[in-house]
Amino acid sequence: MTSHESAIRTLLEHRVDASQAKDIDRLMTLYSDDIVYYDAVPPLRFTGHEEVRRNFLRWFDAYDGPITLETHALTVTAGDADLAFAHMLHLDSGTRTNGMNIGLWVRSSVCLRRSGDRWLITHEHISMPIDPETLRVWFPPQQ
Amino acid sequence: MTSHESAIRTLLEHRVDASQAKDIDRLMTLYSDDIVYYDAVPPLRFTGHEEVRRNFLRWFDAYDGPITLETHALTVTAGDADLAFAHMLHLDSGTRTNGMNIGLWVRSSVCLRRSGDRWLITHEHISMPIDPETLRVWFPPQQ
Repeated sequence: MTSHESAIRTLLEHRVDASQAKDIDRLMTLYSDDIVYYDAVPPLRFTGHEEVRRNFLRWFDAYDGPITLETHALTVTAGDADLAFAHMLHLDSGTRTNGMNIGLWVRSSVCLRRSGDRWLITHEHISMPIDPETLRVWFPPQQ
Repeated sequence: MTSHESAIRTLLEHRVDASQAKDIDRLMTLYSDDIVYYDAVPPLRFTGHEEVRRNFLRWFDAYDGPITLETHALTVTAGDADLAFAHMLHLDSGTRTNGMNIGLWVRSSVCLRRSGDRWLITHEHISMPIDPETLRVWFPPQQ
């Protein structure tokens, strides 16, 4: 594992920890000012720190209490230069205010850029698959 | 624009052209053998050339005739080394076999690795947002 890969794995752990704790200030330190964010929910994209911050707060407010995020099938690609990317599955669970208390599997792609010693997320894409017949969200069969 | 950025913009044009022409062999030359693909449709992920190829053929078969893909809001990030990524919106239209002949806006993230002079896509993520109230696909307001 390169030192860059190690740094990115640590950053991704901080991303999960800050999300679970709903620590918006800590979470936002991981994102670049020019972040372009495609989320599981509308609209098509969020651009810049303020829009992304508001959208994270909306997500936090959908839960009564903490969020639980399990990471699965993580792949980190980091060379010895200033760009890197990672993809993973998250099992997202907790007590939701809308009463839907099942775990949701989401796909997560993260693209990063380094400036000096500091890596920042410049693009993130979160989604769930859609059943093409019903146009509703698709839930994987229970494991 | 770096020469790598130029090469990746050309690759992304070939990706759109091959998709529109339903040229599966040409399209697959752009993907690495170990591609991990998150598509707008189930399951959560497709891994490797054969799974991705079958899924592209399924997509092609959903259209009577050619597919039209317009690219919007493209950003390419390429340094001077061997990793790069890009994100964009596609307006996907054509005559679908299921009768749903509206244009669909999808978000598309593409991660690439270079080996010698050759760039290949190692990860791709395609999705549409989901309305959190109805759990149905969300369509943007008509422009």
